Order: sequence, then C-alpha cells, then structure tokens
Amino acid sequence: MDLEAYMRRCRTAVEAALNRALPDETVDPTELHRAMRYSVLAPGKRLRPILVLASAEAVGADPNRVMHAACGLECIHAFSLIHDDLPCMDDDDYRRGRPTNHVLFGEALALLAGDALLALGFELLTEDRSDLDPVRRVQALNMVARASGTRGMVGGQVADMESEGQSIDADALRKIHASKTGALLMASASVGAMLVGADDSRVRSLMKYGEHIGLAFQITDDILDLVGDESRIGKRVGSDLRQNKATYPKVLGLEVSREFACAEVEQAIEAIIEFGPAAEPLRAVARYVVERDR
Amino acid sequence: MDLEAYMRRCRTAVEAALNRALPDETVDPTELHRAMRYSVLAPGKRLRPILVLASAEAVGADPNRVMHAACGLECIHAFSLIHDDLPCMDDDDYRRGRPTNHVLFGEALALLAGDALLALGFELLTEDRSDLDPVRRVQALNMVARASGTRGMVGGQVADMESEGQSIDADALRKIHASKTGALLMASASVGAMLVGADDSRVRSLMKYGEHIGLAFQITDDILDLVGDESRIGKRVGSDLRQNKATYPKVLGLEVSREFACAEVEQAIEAIIEFGPAAEPLRAVARYVVERDR
Repeated sequence: MDLEAYMRRCRTAVEAALNRALPDETVDPTELHRAMRYSVLAPGKRLRPILVLASAEAVGADPNRVMHAACGLECIHAFSLIHDDLPCMDDDDYRRGRPTNHVLFGEALALLAGDALLALGFELLTEDRSDLDPVRRVQALNMVARASGTRGMVGGQVADMESEGQSIDADALRKIHASKTGALLMASASVGAMLVGADDSRVRSLMKYGEHIGLAFQITDDILDLVGDESRIGKRVGSDLRQNKATYPKVLGLEVSREFACAEVEQAIEAIIEFGPAAEPLRAVARYVVERDR
Repeated sequence: MDLEAYMRRCRTAVEAALNRALPDETVDPTELHRAMRYSVLAPGKRLRPILVLASAEAVGADPNRVMHAACGLECIHAFSLIHDDLPCMDDDDYRRGRPTNHVLFGEALALLAGDALLALGFELLTEDRSDLDPVRRVQALNMVARASGTRGMVGGQVADMESEGQSIDADALRKIHASKTGALLMASASVGAMLVGADDSRVRSLMKYGEHIGLAFQITDDILDLVGDESRIGKRVGSDLRQNKATYPKVLGLEVSREFACAEVEQAIEAIIEFGPAAEPLRAVARYVVERDR
C-alpha cells in the first residue's frame, strides 16, 4: 500500500476536523484560543489520530465514526507537549522548528492552554453520539484517562525527570517510556476499535500492537535526537545528551538500539497477524515508526 | 436539619473515599503521589463532592452510588487550585494556612500533580460501574469536561487575569465567575442526579440551583477576602485588592454585594422547590454558602 498517500489523506481529514473542533480565535478568551490552536494545528506527524482511525478500519469500520476520538487524542498529546516545554520542565524554546507555546503566549497562557486541551480531549471523546455503544465509550475514556495520568504520560514524565543524571538500564528505561509515550500510543491504537464495538480479544491484540510501536517510536526518537537532521526534526540534535537524559543509544549503543526498534516493529506486526488486509495501514504505520527521519 | 452534622458526615465519607482513590505514596513516582495527596487531602470545605452526593439524595438515590463522581469532582477542583497558585499565575505561597503545592514540591512537580489530578478526575468518573446508565455517564462526563475547559474554569481564569486593573461592571464580573467557579459548581450540583438517572427536567432544575449558588459562593468569597478573619480563611485578607482584581464589593459595594448573594441563594432554593424534603440538604448548603466564614 502507499503509506505516504494514506497518511497524507488521514492528516488532511484530521486537521480539518481539529480545525472545527478547536474553539474559534474570534471568540473570548481569544488569546487562550489562539494559544490552543497554535500548538494543535502546528505541523505534526498526527501519529495518534492516524492510529485511532486505522484501528477502527482494521476491524472493518468506517474510520470517520471515530474522528472525534482521533481529535481528542491529538488534543491530549498537544497538552503534554506544551507542558513539557514550559520553563519549569524542559524549558524548550523551539518545537518542530517553531517557537514553543510559552515563548509566544507567555507562561500563564501556555499552562492554561495545556489544561484546556486536556479538558477538550475529554469533551471531544464524550460528544453526543448515539451510534456508538456507551458502555464501550466509558471503557475507552477510562483507558485514555489512565494513559494521561500517573500510570501514563504524567507518571512517565516524572520518572523521566528523576532519571536525569542517573545511570539506569534498558529495563528501567523501557518502564519509563512505557508510561511516558507508550500508554497514550497504546490507547490510540485500541480506542478506535473499542468504540466501534470490536471484541475484547481484538482490542487486546491492538493494545499489544500499540505497546510495541510505542517502544519502537521512543527508541527511534532517541536515535534521531543523536543522529537526526536538525532541519528535519525541527530542534537541535543532542538535546538529550545536554540534559543528561537516559536514552536507548546511551544505554544499548546505536546499533543495538536500531535492532531493538526493528524487533519491536516485527512484534507489533505479529500481534495483529490475524486481522487480514484491513490492518494493512496499521502494519505500514508500524514500519514508518522506525523508518521516519523526524 | 442539622447541616453541620450532615456536612461533617459527608466530608468524612468523601475524605475516606479520596484517600482510597488517590495513588499510594509508597508507589512510584512517590513524590508525585505525595504532591497529589497533599493538595487533595488538605482540609477543605468539600463543597463540590457534597453537592454531588446531596443532588443524588435529592432525587431519592443512595448517595454512595455517586461517591466516585464526588471524588472525581474534588480532584478536578484540586487541580485548578494547584495551577492557580503557581508562580506564573497568582504566585500564592499559602492556601488554607498551609504552604502551596509548588512551595513544598517545586514548580515542575506541582504542575504535573495538577495535570495528574485532572486526569484522575476523569479516571474516577469512568471507573467500571455496571449499576449506572452508561448514556447518562457519557453526558455527565461531557458536562464535567466542558466545565473544566475554555467554557468553564480555564476560560474563566483567563478572563479573570485579563480583568486585572480593568474597570468592569457587575454583568461582566458575573460572566467571568459563571465560568471560573460557576461551571464546576453547576456540574457538581447536577451530575450526581444525572448519574442515578434523574429525568432531564430535574437535572435542569439542579443546574439552575448550581448556577445560583455558584454566584452566591463567588460574591461571598470576594466579601471574605475583604472583611474575613485571616485565621479562619487561611490566607491574608485583601489579596484581591493588592492584585487589583475586579470583585463584587469593589463593583457594587459591600452591602449591595451581601444582598445580591442572599438573593441568589433564594433563587437557588426556589429552583428546587418541587423536590420536597429529600432536597433539604441542598437547601441548607445553599444557605451555608453565604453564611460561612471561610
């Protein structure tokens, strides 16, 4: 399949839906809305929403039925990026080659734009939809809430901060990233299918798929931070080194890290082997996760 | 009825449930969990959870059925307090007579503890519960998500910041507070009933009740900031004046503000007139909102 065309199509649809879902810049409080839109609509891979759509497709459903969830997950992802960049956190001035939210809008508004995007994520996930099974919706929401909190992104962020300057092994690193980036990717890879009524065994397979690509994604991020093309990834390479962060290349070496990422992709593809041709996009996305250059 | 005994009973039950719902301090990341517990378990009025319980009771249900929602709303409230106190926001060192979260745990951890509490609020609201109607649950979640975001707390906080040093009238002030504190109080006063299956007309009455006590609550807060007993309210009085915030006493004068608050309480009680004796706690809480001294 032509993955690039598929992702481009998904991205266009997701960005149009996000544009509609985000509050209008001409409505009060205008600055807050501008700050929210700035970060969400910034150019991005849209990996999480694409996973939501592709996982619905993988179980035979029309991906448009879960577009609201795809947008919700992207808002939650954007929330985490804005807060990660704040001065009291990583203190980053640039992301994807553009000034970070607090550089443009100030710290207070960036903090609040992040908060509002987390809330908006849940608002989108709970919008009025009589065509979806409400029991599955509550389950999907619970998974997303867990993936966002102490057992997910936030907990992983704290563990990551605590690891700075520490010597840790690959296993500890895996644990950090399983929560920091893995949990939301796992949720993204399964809520789409969950919402359209896939059975538990398929949802579990998709969660497993998500877990493996989550790890592959993080290892690749670490590698790109070390050897990537600055103009492609949009920030200075080597920032992990400067912050003395534990990374896969540092713990395992560059070559072993690459092999590790590829093995994770193979396991991700293996997890959804029974899904047949409808899961072709998911398989292609898994390969993309390690082959991307940003 | 003996409101004090009622509120004490509710508070004890809510605090025990919160204690169970919050992540354990001995589990990693321990510091994050300590920070979350510190703010949520700090002494407080527990107004929002009490409203959740009392609204379920007002429609004839066992309030224990919505204890998870009561705890969820309190976590979301605690999230907003932690972020409001941060240096880039109000920069407050004390709340309820105790050091604020960031003073004790540092800015990064306070930011993340707030984020985690918002996520935990939604996690609690979506916990596995086969005895509640899932359609109503999704609706209740949507209301809480809206009340937390740009049309609720976060939007109101921005409008409040923008009003500093501005001359605004009572109507503009009402609009700010309808979102900043009103939306979550309105949600608290109605989700309990919603979750146990109350019909739309009763839910609407409770929302109206919540809207009025929300305003009465805010006016009283403004009055207490001006004339309250520092040892009771746990922070220095006059902080609104120093921050040059628009307040009701400033806009309407102290006496008119007091009358305004009492009139709102009367309207709140009027809104639930058809509920009968089961709504006695809600009526008593409405009176308490203006009679409290902290």
